[in-house]
Amino acid sequence: MAVYLRDIPLPEAQAYFEQALKAAGRWGTLGVEEILLDEQAAGRVLAEPVWAALSSPHYHASAMDGFALRAVETSGAQPGSPVVLNCDAQAGVLQAAYVDTGDPLPGWADAVIPIENVEPLLAANSMAPDPRRPAAIRIRAAVTPWSHVRPMGEDMVATQLVLPAGHTLRPVDLGAMAACGHSTARVARRPRVAILPTGSELVTVGKPVQAGDIIEYNSIVLAGQVQGWGGLARRWPIVVDDFDLICQQVAEAAGEHDLILLNAGSSAGSEDFSSRVVEKLGQLLVHGVAIRPGHPVILGMIRRPGAADEAVPIIGVPGYPVSTALTGEIFVEPLLARWLGRPAGEPVVLDAKLTRKVTSPPGDDDYMRVAVGYVGGQALAAPLARGAGVISSLVRADGIVIMPRGSQGLPAGAGVQVRLYRHPAEIGRTIFAIGSHDMTLDVLAQFLSERQRRFSSANVGSLGGLTALRRGEAHLAGSHLLDLETGAYNLSYVRQYLPDVRVKVVALVGRQQGLLVRQGNPKGIHSLEDLARSDVRYVNRQRGAGTRVLLDYHLGLMGLEAEKINGYAQEEYTHLAVAAAVASGRADCGLGIAAAAQALGLDFVPLYQERYDLVIPSEHAESPLLAPLFEVLGSPAFKQAVKALPGYDVEAMGSPVAELGEA
Amino acid sequence: MAVYLRDIPLPEAQAYFEQALKAAGRWGTLGVEEILLDEQAAGRVLAEPVWAALSSPHYHASAMDGFALRAVETSGAQPGSPVVLNCDAQAGVLQAAYVDTGDPLPGWADAVIPIENVEPLLAANSMAPDPRRPAAIRIRAAVTPWSHVRPMGEDMVATQLVLPAGHTLRPVDLGAMAACGHSTARVARRPRVAILPTGSELVTVGKPVQAGDIIEYNSIVLAGQVQGWGGLARRWPIVVDDFDLICQQVAEAAGEHDLILLNAGSSAGSEDFSSRVVEKLGQLLVHGVAIRPGHPVILGMIRRPGAADEAVPIIGVPGYPVSTALTGEIFVEPLLARWLGRPAGEPVVLDAKLTRKVTSPPGDDDYMRVAVGYVGGQALAAPLARGAGVISSLVRADGIVIMPRGSQGLPAGAGVQVRLYRHPAEIGRTIFAIGSHDMTLDVLAQFLSERQRRFSSANVGSLGGLTALRRGEAHLAGSHLLDLETGAYNLSYVRQYLPDVRVKVVALVGRQQGLLVRQGNPKGIHSLEDLARSDVRYVNRQRGAGTRVLLDYHLGLMGLEAEKINGYAQEEYTHLAVAAAVASGRADCGLGIAAAAQALGLDFVPLYQERYDLVIPSEHAESPLLAPLFEVLGSPAFKQAVKALPGYDVEAMGSPVAELGEA
Repeated sequence: MAVYLRDIPLPEAQAYFEQALKAAGRWGTLGVEEILLDEQAAGRVLAEPVWAALSSPHYHASAMDGFALRAVETSGAQPGSPVVLNCDAQAGVLQAAYVDTGDPLPGWADAVIPIENVEPLLAANSMAPDPRRPAAIRIRAAVTPWSHVRPMGEDMVATQLVLPAGHTLRPVDLGAMAACGHSTARVARRPRVAILPTGSELVTVGKPVQAGDIIEYNSIVLAGQVQGWGGLARRWPIVVDDFDLICQQVAEAAGEHDLILLNAGSSAGSEDFSSRVVEKLGQLLVHGVAIRPGHPVILGMIRRPGAADEAVPIIGVPGYPVSTALTGEIFVEPLLARWLGRPAGEPVVLDAKLTRKVTSPPGDDDYMRVAVGYVGGQALAAPLARGAGVISSLVRADGIVIMPRGSQGLPAGAGVQVRLYRHPAEIGRTIFAIGSHDMTLDVLAQFLSERQRRFSSANVGSLGGLTALRRGEAHLAGSHLLDLETGAYNLSYVRQYLPDVRVKVVALVGRQQGLLVRQGNPKGIHSLEDLARSDVRYVNRQRGAGTRVLLDYHLGLMGLEAEKINGYAQEEYTHLAVAAAVASGRADCGLGIAAAAQALGLDFVPLYQERYDLVIPSEHAESPLLAPLFEVLGSPAFKQAVKALPGYDVEAMGSPVAELGEA
Repeated sequence: MAVYLRDIPLPEAQAYFEQALKAAGRWGTLGVEEILLDEQAAGRVLAEPVWAALSSPHYHASAMDGFALRAVETSGAQPGSPVVLNCDAQAGVLQAAYVDTGDPLPGWADAVIPIENVEPLLAANSMAPDPRRPAAIRIRAAVTPWSHVRPMGEDMVATQLVLPAGHTLRPVDLGAMAACGHSTARVARRPRVAILPTGSELVTVGKPVQAGDIIEYNSIVLAGQVQGWGGLARRWPIVVDDFDLICQQVAEAAGEHDLILLNAGSSAGSEDFSSRVVEKLGQLLVHGVAIRPGHPVILGMIRRPGAADEAVPIIGVPGYPVSTALTGEIFVEPLLARWLGRPAGEPVVLDAKLTRKVTSPPGDDDYMRVAVGYVGGQALAAPLARGAGVISSLVRADGIVIMPRGSQGLPAGAGVQVRLYRHPAEIGRTIFAIGSHDMTLDVLAQFLSERQRRFSSANVGSLGGLTALRRGEAHLAGSHLLDLETGAYNLSYVRQYLPDVRVKVVALVGRQQGLLVRQGNPKGIHSLEDLARSDVRYVNRQRGAGTRVLLDYHLGLMGLEAEKINGYAQEEYTHLAVAAAVASGRADCGLGIAAAAQALGLDFVPLYQERYDLVIPSEHAESPLLAPLFEVLGSPAFKQAVKALPGYDVEAMGSPVAELGEA
C-alpha cells in the first residue's frame, strides 16, 4: 500500500481507463432494449437509426374542411361564370363530396376546396339544412390540382432517415416515430451503477450527529448525477471501514452492475482501503490524478463474480463532497455517454473576465468554481471558495473555470472561459452584489427570487465592495463604513473611492453591533476593554470590513493597542463565521450583529448603532434588472421579515440617502 | 357553435386565462409536499427557502491525515532546532494525537500538522511500527493556529440561506441540504395533467392503419412535455367523436386533475366538439388565438365535479402535431412553471442570418421552424417546412424564429433571433449541406452521427445548392448537373456559379436514373417517349434539380415538348416524394433513382448513368468540422452500406474530381 499517491495527468489516466475498458469489451453501448413508444421513452437514447416504416400521411389527406373534387372540372370558373358540381350520388355522377380535415381524399378526386369558398345549393325538401350535405355546390374560382391536400408522404416518406442512432429522444421525436409507423423504440440499455459509501464515521441522512460523524450524502449526489445522465443508480447502505466487508460488498455489486463507484477511502489514510480492495478483486489502473479538487481518484477493473473473463470498471471516488461531484462530471458522465452511445455532455461556455487574481498548483488541472454576472455589458467571473469540503461553493457556482496543468494562476482581469452550470438566461437575471455581509441579504435574496431575480453576493467587506464598484465588478455594494472623523456613515468613503461614478446610496437597515459571547456570557465580557484580558480570545473580521473599521475606531478612541488583543489576527469574512467561531469555542467573543448571535444561540452585548446602506451606481439603479430590488425594499412583507430578526431598525429602509458623483 | 373562429392576439388570450386562473385561486403553487432527501428529489422545485439547520462541518474537523496539536507548542521550531511533542498519554501530558481527515479536533488542540511533515519517534519496544501510533513526533517548523483544520461552519453556518424557494433541485443541492442538517425537502406538488385524445378517426400506436386512420400520438408528445416540465401526465384512452361521451370523460378528468388538455376537436369542423364541451361544463374564455401554427386554441375553465366552487382550467389543443407541440410550449409550460413556483423555461437565443425570404400572415404571431448552422463563422437560419402537419420539421428544427403580428415576413439575409431547441455545441458540430437530394445522404448522416457530427441537409436541387454555396450558406452541396453541351457532370456549372470560390469536388456515387413506375409497370412505360401518352400522368422534379436538368436535356435531344407531358408542372423536391406520388397513384411515373423505387416497392426502368458529387469550398473541406466526413467517405463500412442500396456505384467514392477556383 502506497502511503503517497503519484498523481498522473488527466489525459493519461483517461487513456489507461479507456484501454482497459476496450480490452474488456466495455467501450461501446451495453446492449439494446426495445421499449414501448410512450412518454416514458423520452430521455432514452436511440441504439439504432430510425427509418420511416410508413409514410406520413400514409394516404392523401384533406388539409381543410371542405369539398373533394376533380380540379379539371373547375377550370374556367369565375366570379361571373360559376361552376356547379353535383354532390348527390343519386342525382348523377358525384363531382364533389364533403371531407373533414384529415379525411382521405376519395379515389376519383385530386383537390379540396375549403368550405368557406363554396356556395352550398340545398335540396328543396331539406328540413334542417346542413351546409356539409348540399345537393350541389357552386364555385366561382378554378381550383389547382392537389390544392388543400396533404399528399401521402408530405411529412415523411417510408424508408427515409428520421432520427440517427445516439439521439436522445424528445417528446416531438416520439410523435414523429409514431407518425411513421413505429410502436416501439430500440434504445440503449441503461447502465447500472452501484454506489457504495464506505466509512465508519458516516451517518445516514436524518440520524442525529455527534462530533466526528459525517453525514453521508455523497451517494445521493452521485446517484442523482447518474440518473440525470441516463444511468440506473443503486445506493448501497453505508459500509464500515472493514477491508473484508468492503471486498465482499464490492464483489456482490460487481455481479449485477456495469460500474461501481466506491466512495471515499480512496486516499492514503490509515482506513483508506479502496486501492487495496481494487488490487485484491482485480487490477488497479490509476491511483491519483493531477486534478484539483479530487486528485485521489482510483480507476480499476475488477472481476465479475462467476464470470472470470468479464471485468467491471470501478472508480474510487474521493470523499470530499466537491471532489465527489467533480469526479462524477469528469469520469462518470463521459463513460455513461459512451455506454449510451450519445455524445458526452457539453457545457455552454461563456467568455468572462476574472474579477481577482488566483493562484493554481502548476502540477494540476485546477477546477475553479466561479460566480458569474453581467455588469455593464461585461460577463464577470468571481472565484468562489476553493476548498474541496465546501459543497455550498458548488451550489453557488455558476460555472467552472479550468486552469490547466502548467498554469500557476491567472491575474485579475484575465479573460477566462466559464463552463456554465446554469442557463445563460438565469445569469442574465442575476444581481451581482459585493461588499459587507448582512443577514438581511439572505432574506433579500429570497424575496428577489420570487421576482425572477437571482441575488449573488460576495462578502469582501465594505471597502472591498466600494473598490469592486469602482472597477465595474458589481451592481451594488453593501456598506457600513464609519467616518473616523465625523462619525457619519458611508458618504465620505463613497466620495473618496468612487469620485467619478454617479451612485445612489439607499438605506437598507439600521442595526446594532455588539459582542457575541457564549450563552450566559461565562467569561463576563461587557465591553471592548475586556478584549485586552489574557483569558479572553477574540475573533476578528477581515481588514476592510465595516465591523473591523468600527472596532479599530473604538480601540483608537480608547487607546487600546491591537497587539494586546489575543486573536486580533484571526480573521473571518462574515458575521455568521464569527458567531460560529464563538459557538464552537474557538474564540470567546467577536464583534458582530445581534442576528448572528441569535442564529447560533449566543448572547449579545450591544455596543453601537450603525447604518447599513446599499451603494448602487445609477447606471444599474435605473436598469430593469434592479427594478425588483426597489420593489422589495418598498414592500411591507420584506420590512416585516427583516424586523423579525433581532437588532434591526427598518425605519429608513429604501429611502434615498444621497445621490453622488457627476451627472 | 361558431363555424368561424375569431383569433385574438396571444397576450390578450394569456391575460384572459390569467384572470380566470387568479379568480379560481389557481395562479400560484398548488401545494407543498415533503419528500425524502434522496436522488428522487432531483428535479423537484423547492416550495420554501432552505435555511441551514446545522453548520457544516458541525464540528472542527481535521482537513488532513496528521497530528492534532497546540500551535503555541510548536513556536520556534526550525530545521536546526526541532520541537518534540509527546503522543503517549501514559508517558505524560498528551501534546499530539493522530487524526484522520474528517476526525474531530480534540478539545485541547487548535491545529493539525500533516503526517508527511512530521518525523515519528517510535517506542523502543514497537514490533510493527505504525507511523500513526508513535511515542512522539518531531517537528521542524512552527504551525499556525487553525492550520489544516476545517472550522465548524466553514461550509455553511446554521440559519444561513442555502437555496431560495422556486429553485429546481440539482444533485449537488441535495448534498448541500443534507450537509446542513436536512433529511427532507419541501417541494411544490406536481401538477396533475389529464390528456384526452378525441376523434373517431384516431388509432392507437401499434394498430394497423387504413386510409383515413390517424395514428394518435399527440397525447404522447403532450405527456412527454408535461413530464419534462415537472408535471404528472395521465393519458386517457381515445374518446370517439360523441359530444356526451366527451363531456363525461372531461368531467371525470376534472375531478382529480389540475389541468385538462383536450386534444383536437378545437377547430370548427362538423365533429369539433371541444368548444361546446367547455361551454357546457364551464366557461369558454378564448376560442382562437392569433398564432401560427396552432390558432384554433381553446382556453376555458370548467367546474370540478362535487366541488362547485372549484374551477379547473382546460386547454383545447389543436390537432395538427406541430400545433399540438407548440400549444404545449406556449400555454402549458408557463402554467406548469407558475404552479411549480419556478421561472418559466427560457430558450437560449442565438442571433442568426436568415437564408431566404419568408412571408408571414400579418395578423398572426408566426412560429417559424428553422435549421441552424455555423458557416464561415456566421450563424445561419434556414426556414423549414411551415405546414402544421409536418412533425418531422419539428424534429429537424434547431430552433424557432417568431415573426410577430404585424410583420408580413422577412427578407433573405435578415438578422433573426433563434430560440434554440438544441444545445449550441450541438449546432457547432452540425454540417450544413444543401443541394440535390440523394438517399445516400441519409446513410451519410447516420455514419456522421457516430462521429459526433450532425448532418443537416436541405433539398433545393443541384443548382440551388451551388447558388447557396456562392452566398456562403452551406458547408457543401450535393450536385449531379449534366452539362448540356459536353455531357460531362458538374464542373462547368461549378466554374459558372462559383467563379471566385476555391472548391473541392469529390465524388460521392455513380447512380442510375430511370423511371419509377407502379409494381408490374401496368401502363407499360419504357422510355421518355411514353411521357407524351395521354394516359400517362408524370410527376416532375423542381426547376434547378439535376434530375429536372436531365429530363429537359433528353426531352430536347428527342424534340419532345414539355407541354405534351401531362403532369410536367407537378413538382416535387426529393426522389422519395416522387416515389410516394407514384406509389399512391397520384402519378403513373417520375424520373428518379433506383433506391427510391425500391424504398416504396416500385418498379424501376433504368435509363441513364450519372455522377453525384459533393462540392465543398476548400475553406470548409480543410476545417476540423468536416474531417469526419472524409473519414466516412473513405470507410469500407460506408461504401458497403451504400452499395446495399440498388443502383449505386461506389467505385469512385471519396476520390477528388477537381479543385477549382483561385488559390
